[in-house]
Amino acid sequence: MADLNTESAPLPPGSTIGILGGGQLGRMLSQAATRLGFKTHIYCPDEKSPAGEVASKWTRADYMDFEAVAKFTMAVDVVTYEWENIPVECADAVTEAGGDLFPGRRALEVAQDRLSEKRYLKSLAIDTAPFMPVASDEALGMAINVAGLPAILKTRRFGYDGKGQSVIHDEDDASIAWEAMDGTPAIMEGFVPFEREISVILARSAYETCLYDPAENEHRDGVLRRSTVPASISKSVCDEAGFIACKIAEDLDYIGVLAVEFFVENSGHLRVNEIAPRVHNSGHWTIEACRMSQFEAHIRAIAGWPLGTTKRHSDAMMQNLIGEEATHWLDHVKNSDASLTLYGKKVKREGRKMGHVTYLKPRSD
Amino acid sequence: MADLNTESAPLPPGSTIGILGGGQLGRMLSQAATRLGFKTHIYCPDEKSPAGEVASKWTRADYMDFEAVAKFTMAVDVVTYEWENIPVECADAVTEAGGDLFPGRRALEVAQDRLSEKRYLKSLAIDTAPFMPVASDEALGMAINVAGLPAILKTRRFGYDGKGQSVIHDEDDASIAWEAMDGTPAIMEGFVPFEREISVILARSAYETCLYDPAENEHRDGVLRRSTVPASISKSVCDEAGFIACKIAEDLDYIGVLAVEFFVENSGHLRVNEIAPRVHNSGHWTIEACRMSQFEAHIRAIAGWPLGTTKRHSDAMMQNLIGEEATHWLDHVKNSDASLTLYGKKVKREGRKMGHVTYLKPRSD
Repeated sequence: MADLNTESAPLPPGSTIGILGGGQLGRMLSQAATRLGFKTHIYCPDEKSPAGEVASKWTRADYMDFEAVAKFTMAVDVVTYEWENIPVECADAVTEAGGDLFPGRRALEVAQDRLSEKRYLKSLAIDTAPFMPVASDEALGMAINVAGLPAILKTRRFGYDGKGQSVIHDEDDASIAWEAMDGTPAIMEGFVPFEREISVILARSAYETCLYDPAENEHRDGVLRRSTVPASISKSVCDEAGFIACKIAEDLDYIGVLAVEFFVENSGHLRVNEIAPRVHNSGHWTIEACRMSQFEAHIRAIAGWPLGTTKRHSDAMMQNLIGEEATHWLDHVKNSDASLTLYGKKVKREGRKMGHVTYLKPRSD
Repeated sequence: MADLNTESAPLPPGSTIGILGGGQLGRMLSQAATRLGFKTHIYCPDEKSPAGEVASKWTRADYMDFEAVAKFTMAVDVVTYEWENIPVECADAVTEAGGDLFPGRRALEVAQDRLSEKRYLKSLAIDTAPFMPVASDEALGMAINVAGLPAILKTRRFGYDGKGQSVIHDEDDASIAWEAMDGTPAIMEGFVPFEREISVILARSAYETCLYDPAENEHRDGVLRRSTVPASISKSVCDEAGFIACKIAEDLDYIGVLAVEFFVENSGHLRVNEIAPRVHNSGHWTIEACRMSQFEAHIRAIAGWPLGTTKRHSDAMMQNLIGEEATHWLDHVKNSDASLTLYGKKVKREGRKMGHVTYLKPRSD
């Protein structure tokens, strides 16, 4: 954890940023870092890596190969991650090898387990969906009582893009879903009758915190489909969302970009859906609509640089290109209001995020 | 050369763009290309390469190593260059190996020799400074007569950033400068009493041509110091500069980004100073002030993609960070109107371009 009371020198250009994880977020982080004159070094076990292709170095090793992690740590000047499912043991191996890890271990630990995350938010008096852990057949009935029906049974770990989730309408659904999980620790979450979903992207360094405007998010089959800025929310909802995000970041002594997803109820009441201790899909619009993208903000924060402005100069609509949709890249490119970003992936499975396109309009607010 | 009458399919994302030259222009081209989902492969003889560090592949070999050039060509889907001093023999080796080279050989040949360039412009009835080749002691006196005094004696080849140039005030200056050149073929150029210098960045594909707004350029010691947009020129001067740039691009059957530098005389009369068959330092402001940067425009053009908009949404001032100036990066980063780009180089010699910073302001025109 960075000690906020200790001013340390900003990391000079030419230094190497180590990134745990090799997906598209690491790719865009790497592109932002090299633009600022940094070198990047990707660490990931995958055979193909969208990030590895644009980085100066790439270590291909397992996250639990602590010898490789130590070697990687010693080869770089600061370590960050682009994925919250990095094992905490890997994070520990970084710090044990004398590395600086931003965001820190605690953010990782809290965010990679839905139960820890919900309990943590509760400890800060931040509202979430009603929840109850499910670790046994006996707990199932009680969980339905607490969460109410309909509810969603989710695995505690390794859930993203709607994976490991089942909608529960009655006790039969619950039994079937729980059986299918085969003993994997789970959490039952009550359904929140939300009007819309928004997310706040926050950047925090040891010296300052700044917020991008909240984005309004549409999901399809559990995967982010579209983010629109500005969100159709009142100023007070916007302010409260920002306040909650800051509260979390401060409590975690957070360094880097943090994303907080919210459900907005009809009354304007906010409940946090989840937090992501990293740059986030719902913040990709910042590449085009802001002077400083979320990726640059993250790099500046972890490098101890002053943060730039998070001000938005345009309205934006970011749409993910999922699976085969990316084959229609040419249709987007023909529109001069569109900016295309592709991640250099091959379509290997349906639902894979292949790229995104951002449409800008003059600012309306 | 691309046949404008033949519609060929655009190069699909995932293809590899081969770039001859490994400097900062190649680096920024590579960053723009990977963003669009392309892979990049850099070819350059240098031990260190700003471009090689952000590319998926890097062949380190001499431009005259035709076996290596052929191997490189066969490993990529299209070849371009970021430096006009690539030997034409290297360009020929690309086409002989079956590669597509954009821009073509002719642009390279014309632009890498100041005498060919001036003669070529003359053939299109485009004004330049008065000039005369100098290849012998005898030619020196005649050259002064044609060019007038003061004049500038320049080597015909390998001149950039003011290298290989001497200002000539009298016959003694001329003798000393010519002797120092030790027989290197030269050109005497008359001094143009210009009011300002501007440049036009043009992008041309097989299907369309578009122009960025002209930039007004300030040089110091022969090196570009600052580019400001909009330039302080009348609409008719702006239109004429664009017309001349288009005339050159059309005549060369040009594919890619072309830069044309002009002297603007007091009367508004334009003379072309030089042309660069590549992305250009005076176009770096397009990264921040336009939806599509000159780098993306070049990649789109050579890939046969539709070009996006070259419209400028903001006024811009781009300043080069030369040599030790780059050590003051932090001063720029503190200003939220500034965007910093560093090339990942070490200061090895004075005058080296280390990076640039772009300041934006709301559009004034």
